[in-house]
Amino acid sequence: MPQSAPSPRTRVRRLPERAHYDAATVAAIVDAAMICTVAFQIDGMVHAIPTIHWREGNHLYIHGAKASRMLKALTESEACVTIALADGLVLARSAMHHSMNYRSVVIYGRFELVTDPAHKLASLRAFIDGLYPGRWDTLRPITDKELNATGLLRIALSEAAAKVRDWGVKDDAEDLDWPVWAGVIPLRTVAGEPLTEADSVGQTVPPTRFG
Amino acid sequence: MPQSAPSPRTRVRRLPERAHYDAATVAAIVDAAMICTVAFQIDGMVHAIPTIHWREGNHLYIHGAKASRMLKALTESEACVTIALADGLVLARSAMHHSMNYRSVVIYGRFELVTDPAHKLASLRAFIDGLYPGRWDTLRPITDKELNATGLLRIALSEAAAKVRDWGVKDDAEDLDWPVWAGVIPLRTVAGEPLTEADSVGQTVPPTRFG
Repeated sequence: MPQSAPSPRTRVRRLPERAHYDAATVAAIVDAAMICTVAFQIDGMVHAIPTIHWREGNHLYIHGAKASRMLKALTESEACVTIALADGLVLARSAMHHSMNYRSVVIYGRFELVTDPAHKLASLRAFIDGLYPGRWDTLRPITDKELNATGLLRIALSEAAAKVRDWGVKDDAEDLDWPVWAGVIPLRTVAGEPLTEADSVGQTVPPTRFG
Repeated sequence: MPQSAPSPRTRVRRLPERAHYDAATVAAIVDAAMICTVAFQIDGMVHAIPTIHWREGNHLYIHGAKASRMLKALTESEACVTIALADGLVLARSAMHHSMNYRSVVIYGRFELVTDPAHKLASLRAFIDGLYPGRWDTLRPITDKELNATGLLRIALSEAAAKVRDWGVKDDAEDLDWPVWAGVIPLRTVAGEPLTEADSVGQTVPPTRFG
């Protein structure tokens, strides 16, 4: 893994041994997460809003109502996009060495508006089919009005840093025989029993990326 | 639920029917999440960093190395803290009405440094015991040096807005008989099989908030 940050502001300062700057690691974390937080400024004031995202190639995409304040602000100033996945609880013999296993990404840059209708259509299809393979073609087709009302933005993943902790407990040597359990408790997101709409009974539940 | 925002910048503008401004709703979402994203500025540039948090009373707490850039910057400028929990995938008959069930909180304000050692000690205990009930007393006791190296910050939850979607599919009336499954697929985080450190075999795995 290349350990050179793409820019000064992406360089991981705390615990740099957890840093990854290669495109494959960044892309894999973006793909594994569904929600990112987009931070930006309006009149010098910081806002941060969680939103669903997806990836195509070297870009992270978000969407929203075209008239939204966030979408407007994002094309006018620099943004910072954050993704974090909690993968495990790390329990050590001392409070100090308790930790988490996680995968995170921080992306810096400027969003650009995607306005070409064909590009928007293809992207929204990729978004839906990424969550539910093959679903787009089974849906009531999107209308021009809907497509037009949807704002689509993307940001390049080229100025990004990933940070990953995926190992066991790091206790101080002198604490190793302290009589308490130490280890990692993995965490994961699972899908529960689907709740079918009353007027949709009899249709087949589609597969999702959560199985 | 009171529907009046505590300040102009907390007023939910998109889909205000999902907004909650009461302390109980905000606190419950803060408690249900483990990771928040803290957005702030350094020299006019926006940064956003995910970090673990906990709550005591009307404050959200975070911790980190005292020397960290983030902890320094947070006491010097306004911050925006974001929490988002994905509770379910909402599958409609049209792409447009696909959605998510979620709980989110956005908090504005200024962090304050907690420096009183007794307060710090009590807070770190609350943090550990909040994740693993009763664990603090079983650990190798924290040292003054460790306590001193740990930076502790808190932000009041008084300027906060929650946003919640927790209902079924809202399709257009004319799409209700479109022949595709519609419903909600719940998502939740679960704990997997604990991975015991080799030198900790025989100790009892503690309970966590994930069961």
